Amino acid sequence: MSKIITVAREFGSGGRQFARKLAEELGYEYYDKEVLTEIANNTDYSVEYIKSVVDRKPHSLFPISVGHSFSSGMDYQLQQMQSIFTAQYEAIHNLAGKSDCVFVGRCADFILREENPIRIFVYADMVRKVERCLEFRKEGEPDNPVEMEKLIKKLDKARAKYYNDYTGQLWGDKQYFDFCINTSKFDEKQLAVDLAKMLK
Amino acid sequence: MSKIITVAREFGSGGRQFARKLAEELGYEYYDKEVLTEIANNTDYSVEYIKSVVDRKPHSLFPISVGHSFSSGMDYQLQQMQSIFTAQYEAIHNLAGKSDCVFVGRCADFILREENPIRIFVYADMVRKVERCLEFRKEGEPDNPVEMEKLIKKLDKARAKYYNDYTGQLWGDKQYFDFCINTSKFDEKQLAVDLAKMLK
Repeated sequence: MSKIITVAREFGSGGRQFARKLAEELGYEYYDKEVLTEIANNTDYSVEYIKSVVDRKPHSLFPISVGHSFSSGMDYQLQQMQSIFTAQYEAIHNLAGKSDCVFVGRCADFILREENPIRIFVYADMVRKVERCLEFRKEGEPDNPVEMEKLIKKLDKARAKYYNDYTGQLWGDKQYFDFCINTSKFDEKQLAVDLAKMLK
Repeated sequence: MSKIITVAREFGSGGRQFARKLAEELGYEYYDKEVLTEIANNTDYSVEYIKSVVDRKPHSLFPISVGHSFSSGMDYQLQQMQSIFTAQYEAIHNLAGKSDCVFVGRCADFILREENPIRIFVYADMVRKVERCLEFRKEGEPDNPVEMEKLIKKLDKARAKYYNDYTGQLWGDKQYFDFCINTSKFDEKQLAVDLAKMLK
């Protein structure tokens, strides 16, 4: 059976960089956006469309009150979403079965819970997250701390909502993880190098 | 400046054994009950009396409603508690200033927060905690899983209450820690050996 590590993370915590380095150090496959490509290979949807769906709240199109009727257009959209979530579930299981690997995000800790993965959550203080996001700022992102903090909160709120709805668990609750790592005081890549030594 | 590590832990998680091994591996002083001895050395109270006070909820003797009057006996008890809490605060600071060290419990992560300690929280799934507690059962403790689980919950509830009242923070909230380590799948002493390598 392959060894599986899942990394969930707060936006700006350096969790993705940590995960990539961890995979590199251990010689494991690294799966992040690759999951979307795998879904696209197994369905008729484009990577862009899949991304637009899996970045949404999974149940946002369900009616709030029972008895509320869907329009037929809404029905179709819901069916598409459900088929993409099913495809995501299968893609993650397929990839996990191939070789030792590290997954970033995508509820992989939950989806693969029966496979006994090592589940890591990476987080940091807001001050440090803002600093890191400004340092590695992408085009179109805010250039000042106040607006960057707002963006981080907004993105993490969406992540939490997505995870909570999809899994029925509370996003970031330490009981669902083996290691929760705060990157505020440490370099995330060095942490990955050190943790890789522990897990070898 | 000395290097400080604080270890808070759930009952039955192996956190104390983890902390002792971590101190041993790093060659740091280890402070657990030693804090009580230090308080006793600096006050007129016995170790037993100090233990009975610091194991209590710190504000349990405060009146619930404003205007409620103390009896003079209650007043005296409250003064004693406050003097012991002050002595605990000073004892922990004194010990931390002497050499590199590991503290277990006693809100040391909060008391020493200005000294930039590495703050660790050790926890585990209930099933594993019950197993561990039954394996290392002390005289007078339950000998069956159901009663042991009740004891664990009771002791952790008291720990949480004490910590929350004393610090104004939420016990076990990962934002106040650098590493949260779940010992369910791992040997706590091996984890300490591995973490010591990271922190050296």
